[in-house]
Amino acid sequence: MAGRLLPLELVDKCIGSRLWVIMKGDQELVGTLKSFDDYVNMVLEDVTEYEVTPEGKVAHKLDHILLNGNNIAILVPGRSPDDG
Amino acid sequence: MAGRLLPLELVDKCIGSRLWVIMKGDQELVGTLKSFDDYVNMVLEDVTEYEVTPEGKVAHKLDHILLNGNNIAILVPGRSPDDG
Amino acid sequence: MAGRLLPLELVDKCIGSRLWVIMKGDQELVGTLKSFDDYVNMVLEDVTEYEVTPEGKVAHKLDHILLNGNNIAILVPGRSPDDG
Amino acid sequence: MAGRLLPLELVDKCIGSRLWVIMKGDQELVGTLKSFDDYVNMVLEDVTEYEVTPEGKVAHKLDHILLNGNNIAILVPGRSPDDG
Amino acid sequence: MAGRLLPLELVDKCIGSRLWVIMKGDQELVGTLKSFDDYVNMVLEDVTEYEVTPEGKVAHKLDHILLNGNNIAILVPGRSPDDG
Amino acid sequence: MAGRLLPLELVDKCIGSRLWVIMKGDQELVGTLKSFDDYVNMVLEDVTEYEVTPEGKVAHKLDHILLNGNNIAILVPGRSPDDG
Amino acid sequence: MAGRLLPLELVDKCIGSRLWVIMKGDQELVGTLKSFDDYVNMVLEDVTEYEVTPEGKVAHKLDHILLNGNNIAILVPGRSPDDG
Repeated sequence: MAGRLLPLELVDKCIGSRLWVIMKGDQELVGTLKSFDDYVNMVLEDVTEYEVTPEGKVAHKLDHILLNGNNIAILVPGRSPDDG
Repeated sequence: MAGRLLPLELVDKCIGSRLWVIMKGDQELVGTLKSFDDYVNMVLEDVTEYEVTPEGKVAHKLDHILLNGNNIAILVPGRSPDDG
Repeated sequence: MAGRLLPLELVDKCIGSRLWVIMKGDQELVGTLKSFDDYVNMVLEDVTEYEVTPEGKVAHKLDHILLNGNNIAILVPGRSPDDG
Repeated sequence: MAGRLLPLELVDKCIGSRLWVIMKGDQELVGTLKSFDDYVNMVLEDVTEYEVTPEGKVAHKLDHILLNGNNIAILVPGRSPDDG
Repeated sequence: MAGRLLPLELVDKCIGSRLWVIMKGDQELVGTLKSFDDYVNMVLEDVTEYEVTPEGKVAHKLDHILLNGNNIAILVPGRSPDDG
Repeated sequence: MAGRLLPLELVDKCIGSRLWVIMKGDQELVGTLKSFDDYVNMVLEDVTEYEVTPEGKVAHKLDHILLNGNNIAILVPGRSPDDG
Repeated sequence: MAGRLLPLELVDKCIGSRLWVIMKGDQELVGTLKSFDDYVNMVLEDVTEYEVTPEGKVAHKLDHILLNGNNIAILVPGRSPDDG
């Protein structure tokens, strides 16, 4: 598949930019991607984690986190749930 | 199985065209398939994600996404949930 | 086990004929089997997918689909849920 | 473990006879075992599948099926849920 | 770990004696262990299976069964749920 | 990581002493660790298993058990749920 | 990815400092990281485990624990749920 951006190549292009992560179950977060490994475990900085509560989504600010790759469902480069 | 289109060969034929993805659980989305890897992780563009809410399906537009292959149940080439 | 039809040999014999697929959870569909791979990912054509809704089973017609093998519980060659 | 019937040897001895299969979750079925592979995927004939409904167990007759081995919890040679 | 009975060595010592099996979810059974393999799939005889129903535990007698090892949570040699 | 006690080294140091095991789901038990293998399957003696019931936690005494490693979430050396 | 801190390198940098662990499901705990292995099984000391109860979060103090890596969703270096 010459010329096509393979999935992990797309992730590599996101290094240093904002990435919206939708996890299995209904957890979501947004952060700046610093690095990732072959299992798509990720280091993210300047993170906002959206907790789903009966009163709606509550945002928590976190400096940096490490995310377990096998819990990820969807990655959305350059966007955030707040974009509406 | 000469002459038969193997599953990943079908996916390869979908590159550049619309693909409806039904995931385990009740999440669904439609997008243009840009690339995929051996684990059927996918890069999709011009995506509409259908969120199931008590008020019915809500559509969200996303430029491009990366989808975790192990969360996929069914792929429907050339169709969308809106086709009814 | 000479003379016995091994499971994947049975699947191979179903190529070109109708196959009822019962998935983990309560999703079911019927289609004509076009091909499959070692993980029993399947390409099916002329598919009817049965969605379980509070009002009962709703049938959706799909031209062709790719089905993730690890989500399959039971395959029933030559039959369909409509056979009653 | 000379002299002891290993699990897959017991399954092999069941070829041609009735086998009650209790699956993870509450699905059950009974059928004549025709063949199986290393993953204990099974081909069964003359099958009765017991669907658990609010009104109790409903039996469905199926000619032959292929059963995904990783969904099996317990195998009971020579018996059936109807034995009471 | 010389002198210590490793887990599978303990299972081997249970061959021929009563074994209480507590499975993931709330299924339980007791039986005489006849054999097991590397995946701790087990052949058990003279089995009592305890079904959890709204009216309490219902015991079913089974001659012999084959149990899928990956569904086991706890093994209790020489005991049974009826010991109280 | 010279000088640091690796996880399985910590488990090895627990041989012969009391170990509180918190499993995935809400099952808990305490016992004396006799042995373990590479999959952290464990042999425990003098065990108290805490069953969560609508009326609160009910303790069951068991002589010795074999515990499936892949069901363990947390190990707490030298402590028990009764420590409060 | 020269110059970028890979996920396990970030974990290594956390040795000796406080780490907030968010697990799959809603279990959370905070502790000082003592060591970890390739599966990100972790030894933590001076631990506070937050149990989610109908009355809100209840904190339990534990000297040291071993945590099963495959149950981890998110690691937050240097922070705790009490930071609000």
